[in-house]
Amino acid sequence: MGGSAALALRGHCAEMWGLDANPVTEAAALANGVIDRVVTRVEVLESDVLLLAAPVRAILSLLGSITNNPFPFALANRQSPIVLLDFGSTKRAIVAAMENLPAAFDPLGGHPMGGKEVSGLAQAEAALFQGKTFVLTPLARTSARALALAHELIAALGAQPLVLDAAQHDRLAAYASHLPYLVAVALVNAVLTQGDAQVWDLAASGFRDTSRLAASDLTMMVDILLTNREAVLETLAHYRGELDVMHIALTHGDETALRQCLLAAYQQRKPMFGALAVTQ
Amino acid sequence: MGGSAALALRGHCAEMWGLDANPVTEAAALANGVIDRVVTRVEVLESDVLLLAAPVRAILSLLGSITNNPFPFALANRQSPIVLLDFGSTKRAIVAAMENLPAAFDPLGGHPMGGKEVSGLAQAEAALFQGKTFVLTPLARTSARALALAHELIAALGAQPLVLDAAQHDRLAAYASHLPYLVAVALVNAVLTQGDAQVWDLAASGFRDTSRLAASDLTMMVDILLTNREAVLETLAHYRGELDVMHIALTHGDETALRQCLLAAYQQRKPMFGALAVTQ
Repeated sequence: MGGSAALALRGHCAEMWGLDANPVTEAAALANGVIDRVVTRVEVLESDVLLLAAPVRAILSLLGSITNNPFPFALANRQSPIVLLDFGSTKRAIVAAMENLPAAFDPLGGHPMGGKEVSGLAQAEAALFQGKTFVLTPLARTSARALALAHELIAALGAQPLVLDAAQHDRLAAYASHLPYLVAVALVNAVLTQGDAQVWDLAASGFRDTSRLAASDLTMMVDILLTNREAVLETLAHYRGELDVMHIALTHGDETALRQCLLAAYQQRKPMFGALAVTQ
Repeated sequence: MGGSAALALRGHCAEMWGLDANPVTEAAALANGVIDRVVTRVEVLESDVLLLAAPVRAILSLLGSITNNPFPFALANRQSPIVLLDFGSTKRAIVAAMENLPAAFDPLGGHPMGGKEVSGLAQAEAALFQGKTFVLTPLARTSARALALAHELIAALGAQPLVLDAAQHDRLAAYASHLPYLVAVALVNAVLTQGDAQVWDLAASGFRDTSRLAASDLTMMVDILLTNREAVLETLAHYRGELDVMHIALTHGDETALRQCLLAAYQQRKPMFGALAVTQ
């Protein structure tokens, strides 16, 4: 995600610096021209805009360490605060942690929707954000300058900005993204444990697409689920209610009730995503 | 499905005849060279191989009408019985109905896996069956000749044959195909009824793929669910058990239990479908 952003922002920044927990990733980013320079945790405080792209709890840990050790000497001579934007998948916990950052930071939350279920620098591509929604969750302390800069950055990525309250983001993302993941995991596990290995010979494009998210990066998903527990549990309860409706209709062979339920989903889903609805 | 088969079998048959409930479809199939001739219900009894491609209950109705009115005069002079193969998505009810066909028919069940969720002649393509599994469910009365001919037909379609008992097919298809459909329907309905329309701005490729099957043809799916009720209800119960495991782990914030459950699905799904696992 960070690599894709760096590629897409090429030409929009005077210089692109990078910093990763893994030095091999830093070296590869430099060698492939994704970044211009690898910097230290002190040097990074000379930047104008700081993007945090990592799993949610890694972002929380970074925010905590900046708050607890902001290297005041490095920040003393700054003309203006560092605009800090994150790319984390849940926003409430991150925005709460941002509130505690020193005044030398001008933070706001961000979430580019629709990444890949594969992660890593090798997957980076400049077009990743093109045409997709990029949610911004500003804080009360976020300046107009930081918000304008975030909008400029989103335009450079080719994405569509959507400003939301962090709690609303987390509730909606639970439905649009976290619930689909759990739905896919439960499907794979149900098929996996039914006991007849020949079932995989019958798994075609329908199973493939419905189950795709089960192959998502585990660390990313565990962080999402644990930092958005209440909202995810609400969607699960609601989802189970929808399964109940179908279960009852099927149990009674009630064709009218069954068809009504299937039709509602059909009418909502059929016109969505244009031609992409017909992927084989 | 019938149109795709006709296109794929071009060159493998002396002549391709067609018969549809809708005369507009018959005319279009003829005009587009999908078939060589439109025939009547009596004339069709002069054919060597009869393929029934329709929703399950439409196939059941066709089998019933052949059984009740086999036009004995048309069958009197045949040298060998008509090999009858269907393309229906569930097999137990169809195979049971095939048992009652007159002796002039040599029937067996068939199910090409992995159609499209869109139907109709306009969607026909010769490559539809290429590389996919084609299940055959022979009856006790099916002759060796009919089974060999079905294998020849599957080879001509470019598909992989898999001979299964009808009940086993229906149980496995419930897991691999019917459950994914219900999973997608419940997902769309849960998102649809949660009350905040802004949720659709956050629906990206993950939601798109997980929900794709909810746009499946309704008549086809209602027929599948109602003719495979017991097996589908079994998969639903099992699936809800898998949701329960995640619900409990999340409720208790039990990261170890949660990760174990997600990991099982990840390890099964990640290596499946090769590069197609990474559809954006």
